[in-house]
Amino acid sequence: MTRSGLTLWFTGLPGAGKSTLARRVAETLVGRGLRVELLDGDEFRASLSSDLGFSKEDRDINVRRIGFVARLLSRNGIVAIVAAISPYRAIRDEVRRQHEAPFVEIFVDCSLDELIRRDTKGLYARALRGEIDHSLEFQIRTRRRWHLT
Amino acid sequence: MTRSGLTLWFTGLPGAGKSTLARRVAETLVGRGLRVELLDGDEFRASLSSDLGFSKEDRDINVRRIGFVARLLSRNGIVAIVAAISPYRAIRDEVRRQHEAPFVEIFVDCSLDELIRRDTKGLYARALRGEIDHSLEFQIRTRRRWHLT
Repeated sequence: MTRSGLTLWFTGLPGAGKSTLARRVAETLVGRGLRVELLDGDEFRASLSSDLGFSKEDRDINVRRIGFVARLLSRNGIVAIVAAISPYRAIRDEVRRQHEAPFVEIFVDCSLDELIRRDTKGLYARALRGEIDHSLEFQIRTRRRWHLT
Repeated sequence: MTRSGLTLWFTGLPGAGKSTLARRVAETLVGRGLRVELLDGDEFRASLSSDLGFSKEDRDINVRRIGFVARLLSRNGIVAIVAAISPYRAIRDEVRRQHEAPFVEIFVDCSLDELIRRDTKGLYARALRGEIDHSLEFQIRTRRRWHLT
């Protein structure tokens, strides 16, 4: 019962593969006998964050809530695995600062060509046609700067 | 790592002693080597539920959120100890149904005379003067029915 937990935080653009990778890592760690809880941003919106929309403010609140839960789990010896777009470094850093357990951020990189090819939710097509809010289009066009600076 | 968790849910009127008892139980269990997380309704309002007020709807949401976190902790082997007024049985039962781990409800009983004598937040004085919303006054007057039926 003394094993210490941590948070693995997968971040990246929609369709990059965050949830898929997070699930694989979770399965692997469960197979090694660790206690693991997967916190998926999309699933969170169906439960704890069902009151939230997609404005910058609401996105921030959603990420903070996921971070709060990951913090409680990780400081109790659980491996909290988060898959969330979580575009803003400031909020991710805030969550990191509040963690007592180690907080590891994983940027799931994926080429823009491949993201546009996958586009399971049709988001990229809409952004490229200018039908989507400015912020996502901006995020897509400045993908690396957005996540990496 | 195979020890199973549970949720101990302290409910009762303001000032009944929920937080105090929850803290004592937490200390005792920590002393026995268990992993324990204390979830206090008031503290939750400063973090995960900072967006909420005190309407019936907002109170329900707060209890649901605490229940969500308690569920994740308890199913990962943690003893989640909740101290929350959580007046409505329907919501407590909803939280209980969603639990994979055992869910134990503890009604912290306290005589109305003693609650009025303590009244650390001045809530009872205000309710008895009719200065507080109908629901709390109703709750105070029907204390046992409110929590126990």
